[in-house]
Amino acid sequence: MTESTTPVLYHHMTWPEIAAAAGADVPVVIPVGATEQHGPHLPVGTDWVLPERILTEAARYRRIVVGPFVPFGYRSRPGSGGGQQFPGTVSLRATTFMSVVEDVLTELVRSGFRNLVLYNWHYENSGFVYEPAFLVSERHPHVKIVVMEDVNPDYTPERREQLWPAAFPGLALEHAAVIETSLWMHHQPDLVRADLIAPDQPERVVNHDVLPIDARLSTASGALSSPVPASAEKGRVLTEWFVERVVQVLDEEFSHEGGTR
Amino acid sequence: MTESTTPVLYHHMTWPEIAAAAGADVPVVIPVGATEQHGPHLPVGTDWVLPERILTEAARYRRIVVGPFVPFGYRSRPGSGGGQQFPGTVSLRATTFMSVVEDVLTELVRSGFRNLVLYNWHYENSGFVYEPAFLVSERHPHVKIVVMEDVNPDYTPERREQLWPAAFPGLALEHAAVIETSLWMHHQPDLVRADLIAPDQPERVVNHDVLPIDARLSTASGALSSPVPASAEKGRVLTEWFVERVVQVLDEEFSHEGGTR
Amino acid sequence: MTESTTPVLYHHMTWPEIAAAAGADVPVVIPVGATEQHGPHLPVGTDWVLPERILTEAARYRRIVVGPFVPFGYRSRPGSGGGQQFPGTVSLRATTFMSVVEDVLTELVRSGFRNLVLYNWHYENSGFVYEPAFLVSERHPHVKIVVMEDVNPDYTPERREQLWPAAFPGLALEHAAVIETSLWMHHQPDLVRADLIAPDQPERVVNHDVLPIDARLSTASGALSSPVPASAEKGRVLTEWFVERVVQVLDEEFSHEGGTR
Amino acid sequence: MTESTTPVLYHHMTWPEIAAAAGADVPVVIPVGATEQHGPHLPVGTDWVLPERILTEAARYRRIVVGPFVPFGYRSRPGSGGGQQFPGTVSLRATTFMSVVEDVLTELVRSGFRNLVLYNWHYENSGFVYEPAFLVSERHPHVKIVVMEDVNPDYTPERREQLWPAAFPGLALEHAAVIETSLWMHHQPDLVRADLIAPDQPERVVNHDVLPIDARLSTASGALSSPVPASAEKGRVLTEWFVERVVQVLDEEFSHEGGTR
Amino acid sequence: MTESTTPVLYHHMTWPEIAAAAGADVPVVIPVGATEQHGPHLPVGTDWVLPERILTEAARYRRIVVGPFVPFGYRSRPGSGGGQQFPGTVSLRATTFMSVVEDVLTELVRSGFRNLVLYNWHYENSGFVYEPAFLVSERHPHVKIVVMEDVNPDYTPERREQLWPAAFPGLALEHAAVIETSLWMHHQPDLVRADLIAPDQPERVVNHDVLPIDARLSTASGALSSPVPASAEKGRVLTEWFVERVVQVLDEEFSHEGGTR
Amino acid sequence: MTESTTPVLYHHMTWPEIAAAAGADVPVVIPVGATEQHGPHLPVGTDWVLPERILTEAARYRRIVVGPFVPFGYRSRPGSGGGQQFPGTVSLRATTFMSVVEDVLTELVRSGFRNLVLYNWHYENSGFVYEPAFLVSERHPHVKIVVMEDVNPDYTPERREQLWPAAFPGLALEHAAVIETSLWMHHQPDLVRADLIAPDQPERVVNHDVLPIDARLSTASGALSSPVPASAEKGRVLTEWFVERVVQVLDEEFSHEGGTR
Repeated sequence: MTESTTPVLYHHMTWPEIAAAAGADVPVVIPVGATEQHGPHLPVGTDWVLPERILTEAARYRRIVVGPFVPFGYRSRPGSGGGQQFPGTVSLRATTFMSVVEDVLTELVRSGFRNLVLYNWHYENSGFVYEPAFLVSERHPHVKIVVMEDVNPDYTPERREQLWPAAFPGLALEHAAVIETSLWMHHQPDLVRADLIAPDQPERVVNHDVLPIDARLSTASGALSSPVPASAEKGRVLTEWFVERVVQVLDEEFSHEGGTR
Repeated sequence: MTESTTPVLYHHMTWPEIAAAAGADVPVVIPVGATEQHGPHLPVGTDWVLPERILTEAARYRRIVVGPFVPFGYRSRPGSGGGQQFPGTVSLRATTFMSVVEDVLTELVRSGFRNLVLYNWHYENSGFVYEPAFLVSERHPHVKIVVMEDVNPDYTPERREQLWPAAFPGLALEHAAVIETSLWMHHQPDLVRADLIAPDQPERVVNHDVLPIDARLSTASGALSSPVPASAEKGRVLTEWFVERVVQVLDEEFSHEGGTR
Repeated sequence: MTESTTPVLYHHMTWPEIAAAAGADVPVVIPVGATEQHGPHLPVGTDWVLPERILTEAARYRRIVVGPFVPFGYRSRPGSGGGQQFPGTVSLRATTFMSVVEDVLTELVRSGFRNLVLYNWHYENSGFVYEPAFLVSERHPHVKIVVMEDVNPDYTPERREQLWPAAFPGLALEHAAVIETSLWMHHQPDLVRADLIAPDQPERVVNHDVLPIDARLSTASGALSSPVPASAEKGRVLTEWFVERVVQVLDEEFSHEGGTR
Repeated sequence: MTESTTPVLYHHMTWPEIAAAAGADVPVVIPVGATEQHGPHLPVGTDWVLPERILTEAARYRRIVVGPFVPFGYRSRPGSGGGQQFPGTVSLRATTFMSVVEDVLTELVRSGFRNLVLYNWHYENSGFVYEPAFLVSERHPHVKIVVMEDVNPDYTPERREQLWPAAFPGLALEHAAVIETSLWMHHQPDLVRADLIAPDQPERVVNHDVLPIDARLSTASGALSSPVPASAEKGRVLTEWFVERVVQVLDEEFSHEGGTR
Repeated sequence: MTESTTPVLYHHMTWPEIAAAAGADVPVVIPVGATEQHGPHLPVGTDWVLPERILTEAARYRRIVVGPFVPFGYRSRPGSGGGQQFPGTVSLRATTFMSVVEDVLTELVRSGFRNLVLYNWHYENSGFVYEPAFLVSERHPHVKIVVMEDVNPDYTPERREQLWPAAFPGLALEHAAVIETSLWMHHQPDLVRADLIAPDQPERVVNHDVLPIDARLSTASGALSSPVPASAEKGRVLTEWFVERVVQVLDEEFSHEGGTR
Repeated sequence: MTESTTPVLYHHMTWPEIAAAAGADVPVVIPVGATEQHGPHLPVGTDWVLPERILTEAARYRRIVVGPFVPFGYRSRPGSGGGQQFPGTVSLRATTFMSVVEDVLTELVRSGFRNLVLYNWHYENSGFVYEPAFLVSERHPHVKIVVMEDVNPDYTPERREQLWPAAFPGLALEHAAVIETSLWMHHQPDLVRADLIAPDQPERVVNHDVLPIDARLSTASGALSSPVPASAEKGRVLTEWFVERVVQVLDEEFSHEGGTR
């Protein structure tokens, strides 16, 4: 099997292939996601499947290893993921989540990688994804770890107009809505329950949180704003924008590493 | 000593006074801060001293207990607090910070409080302040915990014009800059080293993080944008806006509790 | 989308589909694996991909939910997985691994499942997979948790003869060897690097362990015995046997639940 | 601002001032306290406010940095602090407390301090304050950490006569009694609820502990012996004795460091 | 085997015997010790062997179960146990020690015991032995846990004169000295290396601690004061006094339980 | 006291004796056991007392230090130890158990030992005994740690015939049965309640586990197969076999160390 046919996904690679990539200073980009309700129309695996797809696409432009992905995230919160009151959501405690990311980083460093990227799709992981990177960095100051807590592209006014012609609901409410539904429609349309796409919105939108969870901060469906404007074409365009963003970060941070494809 | 003269600050109260407040369902509002560099001109205690002052002011409008404050926060990050490379900053590991907040909440619940607010001044505490609230809420579902991760007032265009007539640097860079310097000038001007106020700005501003810390994402002085436009008058006005914001949240969440003063 | 077309894999399901399955007392079977070297010819994802495939097959005979899978396992050991000296292996510390399994079980119980199975493919997870089940069971005594630490079928003398006509190396050494290579050849042959299949065996085979790792207890390739006798046909037959075993356990433990398909 | 006017309190200092003090090998003395009931007449902040005052006084005689203080301590126990049955007391679990002290020490070492003192006012912190010092010392053997678990001066017979002319109740019962009440009267008399000063004593005094807490080992008021003999003058004298003690320890342990003022 | 011949030591009992004792509300008294240097003349198991012997003697007067003993303690400190610089000492971290005691208590409660005593011989365990008792008590408020951190009898002036005719060195320095050497001489003289008994004393005796360990706070031999005055006869008398003390506590706390023998 | 009379048991040794053994590279062999029900006829201390006796015997053939033993093990499981539903069993949580073994190893390394053996008698400790060895080995790569999770001799067909003339029940069910009963009869017959020896066997024997514990996987007595064929003579022979096994491992792993006696 020649190198040109080495798989891009970490879990499809063999150990000598991984060792070779690490030895060549190829950046390893770790999709960090969640298993979380995404409305009645999208799979609960959304938060780790979509970044894996996007990074696989990015691997066409820059030499990277995609994965190993982290399929579980920190607890869902009402205003960004719907909240822990939904069945189906499988979240980790903060301490568990941080330990997993710490161990994954540690093992990748042990495997020889010196350029690592945490590519986080799940908003609630913010902060919790930085701490394990910090701890591993303290012990291994010779490696570089890039923490992308927010992987969104820049939604310029033009892009907002293109995606949300009616009105931009704000990124916080873009859960199981236009972005993610469009991406699924583009990448794996058979897993979208199209007949269940329907508008929804929280009764209350505030800039603080309440416990026990105030269900009015979330929605009944789990989509925090309307997925109705989604389309496969928007998913194709969004993929380009996401790829563009990660390629830009890779170029800024690892310009002398790995090289282009 | 009559109730009307009961101190507002938790650490100044006696246990019977605290028990009485808890029994009367008075909300207890916990300033959560940090011990962190704030440039050459502001004290490292900024992040817990300022919210304590603001809440003491708020206590003139609504009956609340202020404190016990948490003087240590999660690790400083370059783009929001300057980063862990600064001497003087005393941060907690994520697990330590979460345990402290969890224990403080648990003990306040044991003391009889049923309305609790985490009032967080330190941006990096986001998320880490939610987890302990979640854990305590699971065990004590009868109490209500409000988590204010971002306590800033709404900086309307008019207000931005008023505070930053030249240009708004963005809230992320408002560290040891106009807001905090003005507040110190208003509340305790003798602790402001006025002669050391000088403009500064990071060489790089990006939407991701890098470890080991890339010093270009922070500044040499520790102020992330210019404190030069600060003034005591702005501090007075800002205090009003902060008070207004917390009073609004108190009213929304505890409208039937405690009552007005 | 009708129930009959509900996906079998947890991460492909939506939250209402999961809630419905949980409410119908369908057993949820969690593939617990590892990310671990499997010789130069098999992907490092072997230990979670293969059980997912087998359980998907089992789902044709009994109504179960497959997943969410745990893609990381406890540290690889020389005599059963090759050991931690291999690049590519991404293991968790014992405490991290147990926390992940605990959280996954806790969340599935919260989601309404009352019949749970830990289906463990990675030998080194033994014990570590029992502890979190014990902890969750203590808190939720009304749910039933079945812990399958060893999911192998009974390799009767006839079956041994069929799989290893030359000589049975023992199950401990069946790492990246006949069983796993055959299963990949049957389920996803394009990921088998067939040209790299070659015999190997440890220099030392003992019934104790040594640290730092004695490389003679493992092999240079990572396969602990020869994968040469593997075949897609054996993979097909093995799948049947594995399915038969799990169906038997499901019937013994959940005979009154869920029903047959 | 000249060095001579650098504040003594850590939280009032700026990071360059702290860096300068650390670079000059000035000892940093950390008041470790508690938030704990101190009878109906004293604030719950007693255990960290009083040592801060005393050390600020000591800073007149030796160059030290005072703080950052630790305002929370290990659980209150009946025979020394009244016990966890009192509202208002906000204690940390042992693990939390030790983590906080460990992090504070670690950060001060990172900031450049090489001479550190844990100045503990809360009896129940004994032992728990040593462990984090031990852990940090193992990692940073080049720094010196002095652990003062008991900061009391030597109460000679003459001094006992002076403070407790009637009878010395023993130091264990000196909680919210003569020593602490006198110190408050001297340092901040407006926070003493003088009209609520009244004698009290436990029904049982034994040399073991009982759980659940036997309330007879504590008192109804929270004062473990009578605060009635307290006076501001005694507070002044006590301050001198406490200062004398800490100065002596500083001189013994850091004789070649920092110098006198 | 009749009940009258049931062994007194927990580890010699069978499970039905233990169940019977628990069911009869017999107090279980847990010797908590250490594995720690005790000079050149005494075994490192002193701190758990001696209390076991004394409690076995006490079992002649009151019906108790002795054990299970905890043979490891918290870190040795210079002024009370010689310190962690001695080979042979096997100490636990604070967190480990507390977890062990917590688990032992939890399991005894699960086994049916309702009267538990922690009988601590190792000074440094103070505090660390209280926390696990507190945690278990919170979860099992129906059981009574007595925590004897200091098991010494009252050394009245007469007794001091009898034991230390020359001069009482203070209990803190009574490590591997008169008390423990005498007890070994009485209970198991063949394990005393009599020819190695020699006087020793620390160069410095202070009321604070220093890290890294200042060896002058300990001694070269490990005995903190002279064991020369020890004798088997003193060991016999001391045993009586220790027994008397524990019997008194048992009677005070469990007067209505178990009954006398 | 000459070296030839140095005790073999760690807890009987003095610190200079231990330091001398460590300095001479004598292997330290740590019996790791449990406190667990062993039927109505055997003491709950079986799992640490028996290995201590066997190793003391082994010390006649090779120079080793025996101990410090670990008297507590991981939770009992139905199919190997009877399970956690039995009173009398005192198990540790996984995290506690691993921490204890880690600390014991760490302290022995600090004491100078470079050859360490974990000699595990309790089946359920498997895995949990490897993790702490791994952690300590990472920090101290110059020491050698041998992990004997299974200390059984090779039960050849001849030996099986000799021990179980009727039928070999399998090692998993050899709990409180022929092996352990025979060993007690040989080493300390007075602690065997001979009149209570009776056959027993589980109602169900399966290759998976169930929680909450299915009592049918265990027995009413606690013996998992019949102890009736036990005899003191078998205990003598078994001791020889166990000694032979450990001597063989010592010779294989430490051939150049310590030397023979």
